[in-house]
Amino acid sequence: MAFDVRRALLGQRLQTKDLAHQAISKPIGLAVFASDALSSTAYATQEILIILSYAVTAGAALWTANANGIGVDNPIGTLALPIAIAISVLLTIVTISYRQTILAYPNGGGAYIVARDNLGEIVAQIAGAALLTDYILTVAVSISAGVAQIVSAFPDLFPFKVEIAVAVIIFMTIVNLRGVKESGLIFSIPTYFFLGITAITLIVGIIRYLSGTLPTVADVEALHHNVVEPLGLFLVLRAFSSGCTALTGIEAISNGITAFKEPRSKNAAITLIWMSSILVTLFISITFIAIQIQAVPSEIETVISQMGRAIWGTGSIPYFLLIAGTTLILLMAANTAYADFPRLAALHAGDGFLPRQLTYRGGRLVFSWGIVVLAVLASLLIIISNASVSALIPLYAIGVFLSFTISQSGMVVRAQKIGKLKPGEKVQGLETMMEYDPNWRFHQIVSAVGAICTFIVMCIFAITKFREGAWFVVVLIPILVFAFFRIHHHYKEVAKVLSTGGSRLNIRERSVQTVILVDDVHKETARMVNFAKSLGHRWKAIHIGVSPEKAEKVKQKWQQRIGEGELEIIPSPYRLLAEPIREYIEDLHEKEPDGFVHVIMGQLVMDTFWEQALHQNSGFIFNLSLLGLDRVVVTNVPYQIHHQVDEEGHDHLVGQEDEFAPKK
Amino acid sequence: MAFDVRRALLGQRLQTKDLAHQAISKPIGLAVFASDALSSTAYATQEILIILSYAVTAGAALWTANANGIGVDNPIGTLALPIAIAISVLLTIVTISYRQTILAYPNGGGAYIVARDNLGEIVAQIAGAALLTDYILTVAVSISAGVAQIVSAFPDLFPFKVEIAVAVIIFMTIVNLRGVKESGLIFSIPTYFFLGITAITLIVGIIRYLSGTLPTVADVEALHHNVVEPLGLFLVLRAFSSGCTALTGIEAISNGITAFKEPRSKNAAITLIWMSSILVTLFISITFIAIQIQAVPSEIETVISQMGRAIWGTGSIPYFLLIAGTTLILLMAANTAYADFPRLAALHAGDGFLPRQLTYRGGRLVFSWGIVVLAVLASLLIIISNASVSALIPLYAIGVFLSFTISQSGMVVRAQKIGKLKPGEKVQGLETMMEYDPNWRFHQIVSAVGAICTFIVMCIFAITKFREGAWFVVVLIPILVFAFFRIHHHYKEVAKVLSTGGSRLNIRERSVQTVILVDDVHKETARMVNFAKSLGHRWKAIHIGVSPEKAEKVKQKWQQRIGEGELEIIPSPYRLLAEPIREYIEDLHEKEPDGFVHVIMGQLVMDTFWEQALHQNSGFIFNLSLLGLDRVVVTNVPYQIHHQVDEEGHDHLVGQEDEFAPKK
Repeated sequence: MAFDVRRALLGQRLQTKDLAHQAISKPIGLAVFASDALSSTAYATQEILIILSYAVTAGAALWTANANGIGVDNPIGTLALPIAIAISVLLTIVTISYRQTILAYPNGGGAYIVARDNLGEIVAQIAGAALLTDYILTVAVSISAGVAQIVSAFPDLFPFKVEIAVAVIIFMTIVNLRGVKESGLIFSIPTYFFLGITAITLIVGIIRYLSGTLPTVADVEALHHNVVEPLGLFLVLRAFSSGCTALTGIEAISNGITAFKEPRSKNAAITLIWMSSILVTLFISITFIAIQIQAVPSEIETVISQMGRAIWGTGSIPYFLLIAGTTLILLMAANTAYADFPRLAALHAGDGFLPRQLTYRGGRLVFSWGIVVLAVLASLLIIISNASVSALIPLYAIGVFLSFTISQSGMVVRAQKIGKLKPGEKVQGLETMMEYDPNWRFHQIVSAVGAICTFIVMCIFAITKFREGAWFVVVLIPILVFAFFRIHHHYKEVAKVLSTGGSRLNIRERSVQTVILVDDVHKETARMVNFAKSLGHRWKAIHIGVSPEKAEKVKQKWQQRIGEGELEIIPSPYRLLAEPIREYIEDLHEKEPDGFVHVIMGQLVMDTFWEQALHQNSGFIFNLSLLGLDRVVVTNVPYQIHHQVDEEGHDHLVGQEDEFAPKK
Repeated sequence: MAFDVRRALLGQRLQTKDLAHQAISKPIGLAVFASDALSSTAYATQEILIILSYAVTAGAALWTANANGIGVDNPIGTLALPIAIAISVLLTIVTISYRQTILAYPNGGGAYIVARDNLGEIVAQIAGAALLTDYILTVAVSISAGVAQIVSAFPDLFPFKVEIAVAVIIFMTIVNLRGVKESGLIFSIPTYFFLGITAITLIVGIIRYLSGTLPTVADVEALHHNVVEPLGLFLVLRAFSSGCTALTGIEAISNGITAFKEPRSKNAAITLIWMSSILVTLFISITFIAIQIQAVPSEIETVISQMGRAIWGTGSIPYFLLIAGTTLILLMAANTAYADFPRLAALHAGDGFLPRQLTYRGGRLVFSWGIVVLAVLASLLIIISNASVSALIPLYAIGVFLSFTISQSGMVVRAQKIGKLKPGEKVQGLETMMEYDPNWRFHQIVSAVGAICTFIVMCIFAITKFREGAWFVVVLIPILVFAFFRIHHHYKEVAKVLSTGGSRLNIRERSVQTVILVDDVHKETARMVNFAKSLGHRWKAIHIGVSPEKAEKVKQKWQQRIGEGELEIIPSPYRLLAEPIREYIEDLHEKEPDGFVHVIMGQLVMDTFWEQALHQNSGFIFNLSLLGLDRVVVTNVPYQIHHQVDEEGHDHLVGQEDEFAPKK
């Protein structure tokens, strides 16, 4: 009957040697790092159409003439294409700028590192806060979008959207707590499967368009807006902002440069170009097809699913493959945040800006706390937003564009420093070697253009989506940065308190009074008494007498079974445990204020988490109540109770017998 | 800048003497124990109407003629009155039967105690499982119903129903963790306020009805059902079951007998009769008025709110007072579960059927764990049900009626035992004295009638509501009972393992090897070294060398600042902490397998929860990794760091200076 839930779910501990990673090739690097960026094509087009549909008058559709003066030949929906092209131009600019970062930071050039290197601590913390927020949103958005694909194909599951999304998060959390062996090959399958099926779908779609056999989708229930908004610049910019989520994830390669084969920077840079080219192609093609099929922005069915149905036919096998591929890449994208969030949190924690626990590498070589925090926050977002991508989008992308801006601004500053070097001169920066480069001004301009563009987009995003949720991120990031600096201040202050300033410490002996806490007299008690006796100091045992009858029994048992030392009964008429112990210890301490009081308590150690949970009470409570007392030290003496299967196959609990002298 | 969130929220610890309660009078007893029962009138009528509305054909209303052959003079909705009367008859039967229980168990006669006393452990555990489930539902239903009143008066808040309900639970949890001083007077205000305003409303309502000026409400958006169900016995029984939620809470007085003034049983019994009479009057009057105003079952506005608007006019002051009173009594009802759930869980835990932690009385005299568990589960129910009373009702009341049935069956068995006594004979039962009573057969018949009636209603409820959610409770209760017995089995087995069977234990000295874990050399280190030195045993210090540079520095500091003893560096190239320590300790233990290994580690103690949380890492991890090793004992040496305000009003952290010899 023994079942160890933790071990079953989380698996055996990993050997430390497994941590060493292998260098990966460009195609595998593309698969590993591109899922986040490529997966955004699954929702970017749809989110543009949803915003445009706000301008459609009631009773009309995106694809018919309406009061806004746009006719049948040029309905509102077709605006999606120029918007997608504008976003692609932005993406190209950012890609060119990030290529420079990758070449400059062969050891990894995430926004946090570039900012810390060039713009100082405060900006680095802002970049970090933006990125951490963003990773949480990556999980929430990608999983919501993945579940949206599933419920598009299986509409009966629609009412269980939130439940499915949370179940996926729980599953992904367990997998990541087990530790994902970063096998590039396994990561490649979903990415290339998605690319393959999407490419085939789009090619068939374009052929059917050219041959005039591509149908439109008319049977989807459109999203209903309560108000019609004027089709002006503001609405177009809002649609543009929504589409800019297509850029999320393109920074992933800059974080993962060290994973590539040598020459790392060059290989990573080439992979980045590949990735962006594929992203632009997919995004524009999907948008083009969506317009041709007159895709309907809908809560019920995603645009990808509508496209699949129009091209392949409802219920056909290629349709289901397209849905499966899209869902898989979205889940992969969420999974990359499971690697990035704990890694960045550990970087912050190592610099003293987040709790140190986040630097701790768990038994299976992962930053366990980071994973759990990410999972809880992403689940909350999904529950609050009802797993709706459209509801989450206004929170997303501000963080990404803020980190883009900071990273590229850092590169502008760096180029300036390089510009001051003499020909051939080299200077060791915080992170990398800076080398004279005659083209520094050109590089600086490229970075500056990138920084300015992403900054403008960030502002557009924050303004046009402010009321829908962007305000939350605008408020959250400064709060996070403030919290980071409070934590940093605390660690610095504690270090100052503990420091001796180089002086010698005062090492000397003090008196020790040892007290054993006794609940009952049994084998565990003998273990504690033996330890106290082995220390060779004076000791006595105390029992908190919650009931006088039990206290009398314990006293008798002590005489019969221990037969030495003193057992004192402390009455506790109000059935309290911690308070009388604390008072007693305080009294002892007053008698010898210069000495130590040494409290010994027992602890039962069980095989499984659940059994252990049934025995955690007293130790925890006592430790807590004694913690505030100076020079009162607490020793926990464990007593092991384990499962053992006897000859007949029955499972029993068995304890240590060595403290037990059998009756003569 | 010091802020102690925990203390601010939970308040200062209470003195143990505050626990002693004062005896209360009947009117105050009514206020304290009746809120749960009386508050159910806020939703019982409405839930009957909602079920009846399933028989209304599309386009029609509850109050017009329709295809079911019920005409304008006798529409479907009027069926609510005979149903309410039937429920009131049932309530009267249960009241008479419970009066006997109260008289027989002056020390408290909850279903768990009566079952344990008369029907054995298994039945008692079933009663307990039913009641615990029910308390959780009381919180979820009462708060959802309370929030429904609020959003009826302020429809703008409708979209935030769930958020408001969860906020109320959080607030109530904090209040209860602080410990509610059971001041009867403060409890009386909401109860009597509710009774007053409701009585006035109903009287004015009846006067307006008699004078023909009571309007109907026609402007409420009715609940929309997708299917029409035939108006047959099944639907009527379903409506009856929904209305039976009016009976929830009438058992409260039987749990609280000890709170009353002497003669306790008699006073409690009289209070029970008062309570039931008021409940019946309110329930029938509300149902009658609801029919006269042709109340509409609606998701948007409660029947109480519709009644208030019809009688007092929309937006009038008495209307808002009625809503306030109803909301208050519903919140009070939820609050009683906050007292009952932890108390019953502690009773189970004391008998070894739930984790022992639940018996622990927290610093403010409350069963803290029980409160937190209740709050989390009730919040989950509210989130899943979307704070809808109608969605929660099918889960509710099965537990109540199961416990009613068990309690009264126990009384039948008890009467049988009394019937076997000789005139004048007295027998001490487990809980109470049993005394000869010539009327035992009469009492037995009363209890049997009650038990049979509540059993039948429970079956009706389970069958008619099975698909809507009752199945969940039908499945849950056996699972809970199974879990209770597994826990009980575990505790019994551990007790057996630890028991010496009365024999003498083997008390003897063993060798002790002491090891100090050193992260850095500072004041905290001196504290640990001093303790080790004071014990007078051989000791050495170890440092896990995550980075060789830091290890070298620590070694130098050790020489300069401690200057005695040995510091061993254990290299850890993979930056792990726990694993190398564990291996080192295991090696030590192998050298002297019969002795103790004594590990000393430091712990920083901070003023506030948040600061402490920043320093919990290593101790926790090391303790965990060493826990499984036999005869390895771990001592935590605390070092206190506290806030201190200096003369200039600045807040600083300050540590102990006594281990620090200032430079000469």
